[in-house]
Amino acid sequence: MFDYRKYSAFEPIRLTDRTWPDKTLTQAPDWCSVDLRDGNQALVNPMSVEQKTRLFELLVKLGFKEIEVGFPSASKPDFDFVRKLVDEQRIPDDVTIQVLTQAREELIKRTYEAMSGVKKAVIHVYNSTSTVQREQVFGQSREGIKAIAVQGAKWVQQYAQQHPDTEWSFQYSPESFSGTEMDYAIEVCDAVIEQWQPESGRDIIINLPATVEMSTPNRFADQVEYFCRHLVNRKYVRISLHTHNDRGCAVAAAELGVLAGADRIEGTLMGNGERTGNMDVITMGMNLYSQGVDPKLDFSDIMEINEVVESCTGIPVGVRHPWAGELVYTAFSGSHQDAIRKSVNYHTEHKKQHWDVAYLPIDPRDIGREYEAVVRINSQSGKGGVALVLERDYDISLPKWMHFPLSRVVQGAAEQSGVEVSPTNIKRLFDEHFISVSEAWQLHDYDLHTEGHRVSASFKIGEQQMSGEGAGALEALCAALTTQYGCSIEVIHFDQHALSGGTDANAQASIAVQINGEEYCAVAVAEDTSAAALQAMLTAFSRTGIETVQAA
Amino acid sequence: MFDYRKYSAFEPIRLTDRTWPDKTLTQAPDWCSVDLRDGNQALVNPMSVEQKTRLFELLVKLGFKEIEVGFPSASKPDFDFVRKLVDEQRIPDDVTIQVLTQAREELIKRTYEAMSGVKKAVIHVYNSTSTVQREQVFGQSREGIKAIAVQGAKWVQQYAQQHPDTEWSFQYSPESFSGTEMDYAIEVCDAVIEQWQPESGRDIIINLPATVEMSTPNRFADQVEYFCRHLVNRKYVRISLHTHNDRGCAVAAAELGVLAGADRIEGTLMGNGERTGNMDVITMGMNLYSQGVDPKLDFSDIMEINEVVESCTGIPVGVRHPWAGELVYTAFSGSHQDAIRKSVNYHTEHKKQHWDVAYLPIDPRDIGREYEAVVRINSQSGKGGVALVLERDYDISLPKWMHFPLSRVVQGAAEQSGVEVSPTNIKRLFDEHFISVSEAWQLHDYDLHTEGHRVSASFKIGEQQMSGEGAGALEALCAALTTQYGCSIEVIHFDQHALSGGTDANAQASIAVQINGEEYCAVAVAEDTSAAALQAMLTAFSRTGIETVQAA
Repeated sequence: MFDYRKYSAFEPIRLTDRTWPDKTLTQAPDWCSVDLRDGNQALVNPMSVEQKTRLFELLVKLGFKEIEVGFPSASKPDFDFVRKLVDEQRIPDDVTIQVLTQAREELIKRTYEAMSGVKKAVIHVYNSTSTVQREQVFGQSREGIKAIAVQGAKWVQQYAQQHPDTEWSFQYSPESFSGTEMDYAIEVCDAVIEQWQPESGRDIIINLPATVEMSTPNRFADQVEYFCRHLVNRKYVRISLHTHNDRGCAVAAAELGVLAGADRIEGTLMGNGERTGNMDVITMGMNLYSQGVDPKLDFSDIMEINEVVESCTGIPVGVRHPWAGELVYTAFSGSHQDAIRKSVNYHTEHKKQHWDVAYLPIDPRDIGREYEAVVRINSQSGKGGVALVLERDYDISLPKWMHFPLSRVVQGAAEQSGVEVSPTNIKRLFDEHFISVSEAWQLHDYDLHTEGHRVSASFKIGEQQMSGEGAGALEALCAALTTQYGCSIEVIHFDQHALSGGTDANAQASIAVQINGEEYCAVAVAEDTSAAALQAMLTAFSRTGIETVQAA
Repeated sequence: MFDYRKYSAFEPIRLTDRTWPDKTLTQAPDWCSVDLRDGNQALVNPMSVEQKTRLFELLVKLGFKEIEVGFPSASKPDFDFVRKLVDEQRIPDDVTIQVLTQAREELIKRTYEAMSGVKKAVIHVYNSTSTVQREQVFGQSREGIKAIAVQGAKWVQQYAQQHPDTEWSFQYSPESFSGTEMDYAIEVCDAVIEQWQPESGRDIIINLPATVEMSTPNRFADQVEYFCRHLVNRKYVRISLHTHNDRGCAVAAAELGVLAGADRIEGTLMGNGERTGNMDVITMGMNLYSQGVDPKLDFSDIMEINEVVESCTGIPVGVRHPWAGELVYTAFSGSHQDAIRKSVNYHTEHKKQHWDVAYLPIDPRDIGREYEAVVRINSQSGKGGVALVLERDYDISLPKWMHFPLSRVVQGAAEQSGVEVSPTNIKRLFDEHFISVSEAWQLHDYDLHTEGHRVSASFKIGEQQMSGEGAGALEALCAALTTQYGCSIEVIHFDQHALSGGTDANAQASIAVQINGEEYCAVAVAEDTSAAALQAMLTAFSRTGIETVQAA
């Protein structure tokens, strides 16, 4: 039954003197990837050891310095994977692996067995602290739950002492932190910190999971600020956040949480994870990047990241996924395409130092995305976009007054087919409508004779021979056509430019003419500039459908 | 080149006395769907008129009262679609359609032609106001851009007067609001409002687009609060937001924007739209719902919504999409499964009024999702989940001490196959390991004779005949087996319960026995409770692999 009345509102913490909204993100947090643990546990088909290895190597390459690699006491594949990393010495010296365990002695013992021989590692112990979990799942009092946490912390310490050759760090998560009374969460964490006694050079991590996202991200930030302020011993404690995306705001919650005092963020590539997933590290990292902040992660080859993540998780990257999706650097709308074109040109012309292009928060080439995909043409696209495609893919640059006639043709085709028009088809439509000309209207030869400021000219056009006079060759051709066919001809626009440098370069002539009151456009290319101009006129004239007459 | 230094940080508005962070969302905003316009223009293959009609009908059914249906002056399919809606009288009386137009006279004229005969409608006029667009795209001063807005507003009014039979409303968007200097955005909107002179009963809409999401959502909320506070004539103006998802925070921005004073939200189903898409109305609506706030939209059949959206947009709904994705009500992790099971039971037992279940922010059945999908089993799943699947799908309820032996078997199979284990396979594994028994160990007949507190019994088991004595039938069978096979037998756990009501119900007996120091478990079902118990013991015994001997 769809009835909102069975739900109650999240009870926010009172914090009216919050300081986080006035802060700005000026540096990247410490990142911890949980792709191989939280991400993996939520897959329909969890990763094989080979897949895990491949993903681990990608994570290292991207620059993650902390990677949670599994829950070895609960899963044999995780255990085997950790052993493989250690035994095959696959962990670079500057990377710390982390493993998760519940606060139970046999699991903690088994965890240390899995890690035996590793150089340095984080043992991440957790128990659930929320009201719901205490009352409904564990049937334990606040004291009882706190005792589990402290006892877990003790065991973690004790077993660490049995493996003295490793540099161990400890992390504690009050799981379901977001649903825990704040003062109680602080009490539990204070007790764990008291047990671990962090000191300079021996930091610990307190990780605050929004195991289920429960309210707007500003409320989560209030929780984080409140927590950070009230912790008895904040020094030597790295505050970590682990947000989930139940309300679609995991990234926002992590960002505002960092403003609120967190030092470290746990997340996954593309936000894979339980249910709606974790915080997406790519999104948060690229958000920082686009603000001129070093993300401390290298996303320069987003296509490779997409490929590895898809093949390891079996989950396709959405076409609209921020920064990574197939469609996120495209613009179908005409006004967007036009603005992008102008804005990119403006940058080039003004040699602008900072990227500030309409509709494109970053230069897609930064992350290995083809700039070419930006403009795509469907029935919603405007004239600028179509011209841009011709220029981009075929080096055909058209004068602005040609954009509309061309786009009318392309848009007509798009409306008729109902699907996207490919660059190949745009080129085909352009050729068909503006370039191609029947043999009957092809210029074969011409003779131009100038006397004073007048040109007299004769033309061999298909089978026809005609002549005329004017101030220039084009005007002479108009005169000849007018004489021959008894029609009015007026040149509306004319443009000619060389297609590339050098004297032997082809010239491209574009023309718009009004013939008997109707407008026709055409384009012609020839080595000889006069020939290009004359042919463009003839091609346009041929579009009238007027029957050729044999020369007298 | 991956180099963050080419980007500069967003310049936030100074608003230290903001009030929005202390507010709470207590009612739904007015919703306006832009699926058929912004959503449609960004599709590789835009919708056909048939698809648009289907989506329109879904939007009406969900309860949208304002629907932007197209940009008829720019697109022939959009024009045709609007005509179809009007001519075929497909617009319910309580629904207002809205169309977009640029602030150009010929487009506005054409827009009114498209709308001719509609009962009521919103004409939504826009021009771009951001610094980037003014300088790089339009090459216009602030005054010039403001004049375009005011002139557009005038034309919208003038042409409305030429179509007096329709109840017209007006909406203005300073496009790229998020990248516009706030005081200038206010200046432009003040001028448009001044032109339109809203009054009681004749509200207007000012829509603030985060055309490109440019900063954290709290910064956007600051912009909105600043804007609302400084507008000269806030009365009779509905403030609308139109956020995009470039930084993955469109929903957060809209939510915080409503806290900051907005009345109305434009968005799309599943957040379809240009690039990374628009604000997802389903996510924001369900976020409200899960907090006990009436979303004023009906998402009770999410599967139908998924189906229509997918078939109209050609974009699949992501498996982790908040509230709607395939995996968002699943739990693979053992501890999550266990907690959900306990928490759901707690709710039933305590007849709790408000939903407050671990890991499930709402009851999935509210929106037509099968509760059955919640627990799925892979190699990361724990013992509770497997038992829950048997109970859920096969009505087989096992005592808690059977969970571990069963899950060990299932997890082994999951680890071996590397893929999810289906409920059918869990049942098969359960039968094979705990129920099935060879003919040699089947109980055919028994005789029980009681004298005082002793039972003497004889059994026909396969081909064997044996007898023994004890305090009960089970003990007598143990005695018989011990005598026959010379082994030690100790019952560790025993549980028996009726499978359904009534005297002819089957009984299910579960047993864990230690035989020569090894533990074996088995389950048997029979109409006769004694037979069930005895068979369970025999099945467990058969697992030892001890060869049967012929009865003497």
